[in-house]
Amino acid sequence: MSYPAYRLRPVGWVKSPLTDRASAPKQGDEGAPLARVVFLPEFYEAARDLQKGDEVFVLTWLHQGRRDVLCVHPRGDVNRPREGVFATRSPDRPNPIGLHAVVIETVEEQAITVHNLEAIDGTPVLDIKPILGRVHER
Amino acid sequence: MSYPAYRLRPVGWVKSPLTDRASAPKQGDEGAPLARVVFLPEFYEAARDLQKGDEVFVLTWLHQGRRDVLCVHPRGDVNRPREGVFATRSPDRPNPIGLHAVVIETVEEQAITVHNLEAIDGTPVLDIKPILGRVHER
Repeated sequence: MSYPAYRLRPVGWVKSPLTDRASAPKQGDEGAPLARVVFLPEFYEAARDLQKGDEVFVLTWLHQGRRDVLCVHPRGDVNRPREGVFATRSPDRPNPIGLHAVVIETVEEQAITVHNLEAIDGTPVLDIKPILGRVHER
Repeated sequence: MSYPAYRLRPVGWVKSPLTDRASAPKQGDEGAPLARVVFLPEFYEAARDLQKGDEVFVLTWLHQGRRDVLCVHPRGDVNRPREGVFATRSPDRPNPIGLHAVVIETVEEQAITVHNLEAIDGTPVLDIKPILGRVHER
């Protein structure tokens, strides 16, 4: 595998009943349905130690995000003054990486099913990381 | 600005007394010194609403990470069995995006100074995101 600098490679994809950005919840704990992260076969090994009940971050590429937007009305509410996107969780930002705190419900070799993932169907997945507990538990 | 798919663009860089990966703490709350995130001028507007005391995630590109590694000994401890990297916070992973929970100490137009950032000097910064509080506070 050859990897140019700063070039991301999806490790899998979101499969979800959510199909468009307008109807998806703003955050996963605001009503997201169960969703799956389906891995590409060459990354099964990286996912092999994920377990039911694990709290993990799913990192995605928000492929519908606008990368030339630097200020937004928070949560799309025009009554709120515009803020620089680094102070918001807007999907419109220079590098539209989505960060989703989820809980794993089921594990298969090729996929995990998770709670609280608001990314839409077809969203590329970049990484999975455990949410860290206290220092002595690492 | 033109953005090919999956091509990241640094929005700034880490300035830190930490200069090599071997001596850096494994996580920022394990003894990282104060560090700065220095923004490129074209992204100052995106950073304009960050404030002292804000708890934010800094997303970085761990440019020394090995992208072909799928299993590691957690925390580099060979006495611990190897695990798939998605169950670890190893910098060696298919897309070596660093996720750092930090607290902002000072804000200038061109930079923020933060606590708990363990990334080494010169690490590219990809994004800043607020750490979310409870649903009703958003």
